[in-house]
Amino acid sequence: MIWPTIFLGLTLQVLLVFGARYPKNLHIWPMPESVEYGNKTIFLSKDFQLKTDGSKYADASGILKDGFTRLLDVITASNVIESNFSKVDESVLLQGVHVIVLSKDDELQYGVDESYELSIHPKGKPIYANIKAATVYGALHALQTFSQLCHFNLKRRKLEVSQIPWTITDRPRFAFRGLLIDTSRHYQPLPMIKKVIDSMAYAKLNVLHWHIVDTQSFPLEIPSYPKLWDGAYSLSERYTVAVAADIVKQVKEPLDISNAFTFKLIDGVLSDFSKIFKYKFVHLGGDEVDTSCWSSTPHIKEWLKQQGLNASQAYEYFVLNAQKIALLGSGVAERVVAAGLRCIVSNQDAWYLDHLSTTWQEFYTNEPLTNITNPTQQKLVIGGEVCMWGEHIDGSDIEQTIWPRAAAAAERLWTHPDKLAKTPKDVTSRLSHFRCLLNQRGVAAAPLDGPGRVAPIEPGSCYTQ
Amino acid sequence: MIWPTIFLGLTLQVLLVFGARYPKNLHIWPMPESVEYGNKTIFLSKDFQLKTDGSKYADASGILKDGFTRLLDVITASNVIESNFSKVDESVLLQGVHVIVLSKDDELQYGVDESYELSIHPKGKPIYANIKAATVYGALHALQTFSQLCHFNLKRRKLEVSQIPWTITDRPRFAFRGLLIDTSRHYQPLPMIKKVIDSMAYAKLNVLHWHIVDTQSFPLEIPSYPKLWDGAYSLSERYTVAVAADIVKQVKEPLDISNAFTFKLIDGVLSDFSKIFKYKFVHLGGDEVDTSCWSSTPHIKEWLKQQGLNASQAYEYFVLNAQKIALLGSGVAERVVAAGLRCIVSNQDAWYLDHLSTTWQEFYTNEPLTNITNPTQQKLVIGGEVCMWGEHIDGSDIEQTIWPRAAAAAERLWTHPDKLAKTPKDVTSRLSHFRCLLNQRGVAAAPLDGPGRVAPIEPGSCYTQ
Repeated sequence: MIWPTIFLGLTLQVLLVFGARYPKNLHIWPMPESVEYGNKTIFLSKDFQLKTDGSKYADASGILKDGFTRLLDVITASNVIESNFSKVDESVLLQGVHVIVLSKDDELQYGVDESYELSIHPKGKPIYANIKAATVYGALHALQTFSQLCHFNLKRRKLEVSQIPWTITDRPRFAFRGLLIDTSRHYQPLPMIKKVIDSMAYAKLNVLHWHIVDTQSFPLEIPSYPKLWDGAYSLSERYTVAVAADIVKQVKEPLDISNAFTFKLIDGVLSDFSKIFKYKFVHLGGDEVDTSCWSSTPHIKEWLKQQGLNASQAYEYFVLNAQKIALLGSGVAERVVAAGLRCIVSNQDAWYLDHLSTTWQEFYTNEPLTNITNPTQQKLVIGGEVCMWGEHIDGSDIEQTIWPRAAAAAERLWTHPDKLAKTPKDVTSRLSHFRCLLNQRGVAAAPLDGPGRVAPIEPGSCYTQ
Repeated sequence: MIWPTIFLGLTLQVLLVFGARYPKNLHIWPMPESVEYGNKTIFLSKDFQLKTDGSKYADASGILKDGFTRLLDVITASNVIESNFSKVDESVLLQGVHVIVLSKDDELQYGVDESYELSIHPKGKPIYANIKAATVYGALHALQTFSQLCHFNLKRRKLEVSQIPWTITDRPRFAFRGLLIDTSRHYQPLPMIKKVIDSMAYAKLNVLHWHIVDTQSFPLEIPSYPKLWDGAYSLSERYTVAVAADIVKQVKEPLDISNAFTFKLIDGVLSDFSKIFKYKFVHLGGDEVDTSCWSSTPHIKEWLKQQGLNASQAYEYFVLNAQKIALLGSGVAERVVAAGLRCIVSNQDAWYLDHLSTTWQEFYTNEPLTNITNPTQQKLVIGGEVCMWGEHIDGSDIEQTIWPRAAAAAERLWTHPDKLAKTPKDVTSRLSHFRCLLNQRGVAAAPLDGPGRVAPIEPGSCYTQ
């Protein structure tokens, strides 16, 4: 009876010596830059707390506090915690997370520092999980990683963190890790969009590219052009400015949303104008564009203020942006960066979620820097984006069409190349674990075993499908 | 310009004269027994309240209060209410719902009175929506109906109730209106089951038939048989007693759940025993059944107390029940009721949700009393059940496989025969409206236009697909 135990002990030793080469029982998605762990278990206190002593960040807007509340929600979502915690010895009790943020500033902008350190060591009483981050957005990523370390212990009826001590240092490979949703081909109700944003944060995606309007419908309210959203499919299939602002406000993981949102908003207005006003916009002088709506839209106004731009400067910025950043497929990307332009990789053949025949393995192996070897040119690839075009997507099928395939791309965009699997089958078990985690959090992620949005082929465990 | 208005006015008059023969703009699902309405509009107060003056029901367990909270959640889910209500004249301001329940008792049992009256008249200041019900469960149905009368007014940025005055009297045709879910072929995480229960209430289904265990897996904890749930697919694909109790607790629309749940629990244990103990249970003496788990399971214990049964009497009750009530297809049903036995209609050819080729039209037209003309025999048909067998259903696809087809069956089971559509196409617009309402509440109901769980065929409005 004693041999298996000892053998297990040896195994763990070996793993530790080799600095954790990610065995089957490591279930973090996307994989952090560096992970070390042990073999002890600790239990979350029933009054699990957020502690910020020594942090420079004041959290005036409650970004961190809200993130902590969401953490508690997700780790308790799939079970009922019923046990009497007072029974547990303090030496195995985790009292909370101690978050230290180095920057006072929480302005959201492209390239914000998203790095973090997360360590859980059974030292000191009471014991805290220690998070150190340059910005509050790094701290939010750390909370997401922490949430994946928490499990429900069926014997003790407690939330536990096993495999401690943990030492994790992490940062994204690419600054722009996007998901495009399309609310023109089909309207997406507010609750669906909010769920998509929450689930993006679980996979550390950080840009919601909201393709609000297109030929098919114009669901967005533009205060200075009140007739525009008469182009919506129906009265109820519309987004008021307040709803749009609410969606932006809810985006507290580092989604570069004001930027993406505003940019897309203008993009939408212009492209729509070009249809309404019969190609008046072939020459974009700018003088024909009434930009007053920006200053009358609270969150855009706020964003303009932060940027120190007036409306027409902003318009110039957008046009320049449109020229500077291009959404491109691989192959094209090499030529664009060779020309000194920035780009975001988003190739149809691998990263279009509406292509149901594209498997998660193809999403995983799509490398943004394919054939781009020059370091200067590599820096011009600021990231990538998976696209959920809406021709056949509405509120009934968006979640399982996005997940788990978007998660495969998310690891490609987040994880350091050395830590990426050489072959997708090396991550199948970890990705299916993440997919089941999404289900446990109420997100309808589809089985891995098949193409996009596939139903389970036969009865069985979530972890095998 | 004035003619269309007048014509509209006339149309409404005609409708009223003929006592509302349910025109296109009446969007209540399932259709109540009797509905009258007008053409005025009223706006919900920003401090919309629950008033219970004169009610005999004390609401000690907060059933009504929780129902009112859920009402506020669903009517505000899809929009951001931003307007200044003080601008509105009190004469068009709806201050809240005034609920009067006649029975002190809120014990859940088969055949509980679910009838209600809901009237909204622009009389008295402040104005209230008046709900009168025999039991709190009828009142909860009234709140569901009321929620379907609320819309977001884009001009005023307020929640409105149009078409007042409303006078609705309503009660179910059948007492048992069930949905079966199967957590043995695939595990369903707690958040999924809770969402299913909420959405059932929207359609006034009142029995969750939880097929917990079967050959494939045994996810439920049975305290007196701690090894049983080793038959679960995995450690995390399990329901603790606390989770099961939480699911039962959450069921506050009149789901006859303790009954259904307990019955199914025993059923599951027995059928599983028969496999474990090699057919020892071919003769069910009862003495071989250890029923201690019932008394050790809080909510079952409570239910036994309410029934005034001890464990072995309860066992007897279950066996008798198993003999008295049968789940049957049409055709079989007529023979069973002819033999004087009660039955619940649930025929494969029309009410199995896992049969994707069965359309909502077939779900709608499936009549439980087919070929049963004798009134005494008709009374023996206590209702029906749609079945979501789990071979190809997991957390990723349960919602769109259930909805909207289960809603079609729900109207068949709820609505008085005189008010049922003679042909499904008469309700297409109203059902698609209900489907879009489900989407707006975050439920992934599929388009009507096609078989089960179909994706939208092309870009377009939710209301046309």
